[in-house]
Amino acid sequence: MSESTSHSDIRMRGFLNRKSVKEAQDWCDAQSTPLPSDVIPLRDAHRRVLAADVVSPIDVPPFDRSAMDGFALIAEDTFGASDYNNLRFTVVGSSFPGDGFSRTVENGQAIRIMTGAPIPDGANAVIPVEYSNVEQQGKTEQLLICESTSPGKHIGRQGEDILAGQVILEKGRSLRPQDLGVMASVGLNEITVHRKPNVTLLVTGNELVSPGTPLEKHQIYDANSFVLRSLVARDGGELVSQIYVPDDEQKLKSLLQSVDTDVVLLSGGSSVGQEDHGPQLVAKLGELPFHGISMRPSSPAGMGKIGNILVFLLPGNPVSCLCAYDFFAGRAIRQLGSRHPEWPYQRQSFELNSKIASVVGRLDYCRIRIVDGNATPISVGGASILSSTTRANGFTIIPEDSEGLPAGETVDVFLYDEPGQYISPDGTL
Amino acid sequence: MSESTSHSDIRMRGFLNRKSVKEAQDWCDAQSTPLPSDVIPLRDAHRRVLAADVVSPIDVPPFDRSAMDGFALIAEDTFGASDYNNLRFTVVGSSFPGDGFSRTVENGQAIRIMTGAPIPDGANAVIPVEYSNVEQQGKTEQLLICESTSPGKHIGRQGEDILAGQVILEKGRSLRPQDLGVMASVGLNEITVHRKPNVTLLVTGNELVSPGTPLEKHQIYDANSFVLRSLVARDGGELVSQIYVPDDEQKLKSLLQSVDTDVVLLSGGSSVGQEDHGPQLVAKLGELPFHGISMRPSSPAGMGKIGNILVFLLPGNPVSCLCAYDFFAGRAIRQLGSRHPEWPYQRQSFELNSKIASVVGRLDYCRIRIVDGNATPISVGGASILSSTTRANGFTIIPEDSEGLPAGETVDVFLYDEPGQYISPDGTL
Repeated sequence: MSESTSHSDIRMRGFLNRKSVKEAQDWCDAQSTPLPSDVIPLRDAHRRVLAADVVSPIDVPPFDRSAMDGFALIAEDTFGASDYNNLRFTVVGSSFPGDGFSRTVENGQAIRIMTGAPIPDGANAVIPVEYSNVEQQGKTEQLLICESTSPGKHIGRQGEDILAGQVILEKGRSLRPQDLGVMASVGLNEITVHRKPNVTLLVTGNELVSPGTPLEKHQIYDANSFVLRSLVARDGGELVSQIYVPDDEQKLKSLLQSVDTDVVLLSGGSSVGQEDHGPQLVAKLGELPFHGISMRPSSPAGMGKIGNILVFLLPGNPVSCLCAYDFFAGRAIRQLGSRHPEWPYQRQSFELNSKIASVVGRLDYCRIRIVDGNATPISVGGASILSSTTRANGFTIIPEDSEGLPAGETVDVFLYDEPGQYISPDGTL
Repeated sequence: MSESTSHSDIRMRGFLNRKSVKEAQDWCDAQSTPLPSDVIPLRDAHRRVLAADVVSPIDVPPFDRSAMDGFALIAEDTFGASDYNNLRFTVVGSSFPGDGFSRTVENGQAIRIMTGAPIPDGANAVIPVEYSNVEQQGKTEQLLICESTSPGKHIGRQGEDILAGQVILEKGRSLRPQDLGVMASVGLNEITVHRKPNVTLLVTGNELVSPGTPLEKHQIYDANSFVLRSLVARDGGELVSQIYVPDDEQKLKSLLQSVDTDVVLLSGGSSVGQEDHGPQLVAKLGELPFHGISMRPSSPAGMGKIGNILVFLLPGNPVSCLCAYDFFAGRAIRQLGSRHPEWPYQRQSFELNSKIASVVGRLDYCRIRIVDGNATPISVGGASILSSTTRANGFTIIPEDSEGLPAGETVDVFLYDEPGQYISPDGTL
């Protein structure tokens, strides 16, 4: 044991007891109150989360407009028109989008009008071009109408989409493409969203080398930082710095004392090895209410706080790292950004084609491959086999109170691929 | 009619006949062969699509390593150990990640070892720290073993994750976070992906003003460019330029002649109005096999080619614009990037709580709001009411051969929100 060993140091002794996934998630939820707001340009707002209700300052459309290409006229003038009684109108002008007809339409007159163009004063209906017949008579055009129309026909009324003063989008909403369109349509070019949680990634491990560099004896390539970087972005966080840290207690300590992001992800060194300084340091500099979780993989995961900074200890084994991030850190990052905590994966039910063994008291993250439309468990263990998560199409969760599942059982699979991007060989997805 | 009217000009006359959605989608599919490849840094590869199989140049792990914190020793030395027959080993050194034990382990010796550290020569098993008992005897440490272990126990074998020469990921794959991890773990820092389809967005309409500017008489705010910008990014495209074009045939013509992106989206001016120059120009400068589609909304949509550039005519009405993008342009952009053409939305079944009317021969894009766990149709028409797509949770498609659906029918709803980001009021999603 090193000299810095304190009473609670469990290095080279093992976890005395583990806490449940639910307790750890509840802690994450309690710690992750949405961050304050930021004003950003509307064009950058896709997938950001509204921090305030959006109220429209104007009516949309801001004037009555034509819903069709055709002719604006007075509806009552068309009453009685039929195939046997064509009625004639004199075309006296045009209304284009952005360039309306400036006078008032009178009985017997028609105005050539385009979709989106303002309805001229006096007119109250539009005859679509498809139902129009135009004759040239000397210098004037005559519109022949063979069917009556009614007031308001083919007119988009002022405010029919949005009324001034109306709440158009509510706070807490993760913005879709069309939400940006609606905010643009009321003239907003800046909006108030929750600040993105910013994240520091500390990658520990003397054995790690960045890809692209030749390996020396006993070295391996860093994989976790590439996984975590993408996951943080997916969850609406912003990775502001990534630092390789040697297994040196002092260096890690001074880094942990100097970070000022909302979240720190510490990859590697989370367990009970002699070089695992993270847990002791977080406990000393702040608090470490969770270290050791009843789950597989990721049981050496931990989480705590230094000041207001959430610190997640992610095991160095890459499957454990991915899994611990997804169960805890991602959940916290999503909630700091005011997103829903739920899994950001599509869920679909499949029938298991072989059994999954588990033990009561431990939750299992079981990778699943879809084969012939059925769920095939890949492995519950193998925390170091990252390729198991690339062979898998997703995962299922075996809860703590289960001893496992027999073949033939239906399971909920969380699919790793984005909607539309996974097609199983038999086309069932 | 303007003087430039040619034989096929349908401006101010209406569509003579419309083609089916399926014909138009088939055309999109046939035109959208995956773009050539690009080499990019691994760290930027999330959601990019592999253009070549990835073969590992190394074994992962590159050496036998410990899967646990504990002690490495010769398994056969532990045979016969029990609670009543503790066996003693002398701890003669350590193996740390990146810094192995340099000598050979002999009978009766043990090496303190950390997870991920190389297994020293001679040793063939690891006893986890949780099952170890260490006694200090003078200057040496003695490990007491009360249970036998077997050769290979708690050792991660060289190549157990990946073997040199193995295909680790296949071309055509949209890369997940863990895929980046696997490529990093074999030392790759650059990979070959399909080039992103680049897109020019031309926004037409004299009435349009950019949000943030005061509206003058008869003006409205541009909403479509904000929607399209986000959709292009979602589908893996890159919007390289966005230009407001006045309703001026010459200006639009010279722009269409000068663009050099893979795709042009022309928003507005796609129909049969007098100011709708797009269709004629695309037909003149290239080909316009589709103009007028049997669907609602978006029937004035069109698509064609100028040289090798795919041009999509998107109606100016914002719901039509969104819908025409999603049915045709997005499908093409995804396939140019070698993605699957399928809808990039989660799909879920719901029961309709009121009927949807449609007509045979026309496909309907029907917005759906989920109310008390059931699907409520919002509106099939209302192409100008963009707020219908923000009130909706998704949409369902009424196929061409259907007259509509009665209440109580089960429909597939494509959900606008990303997985995990929509929770219905009753918690069913």
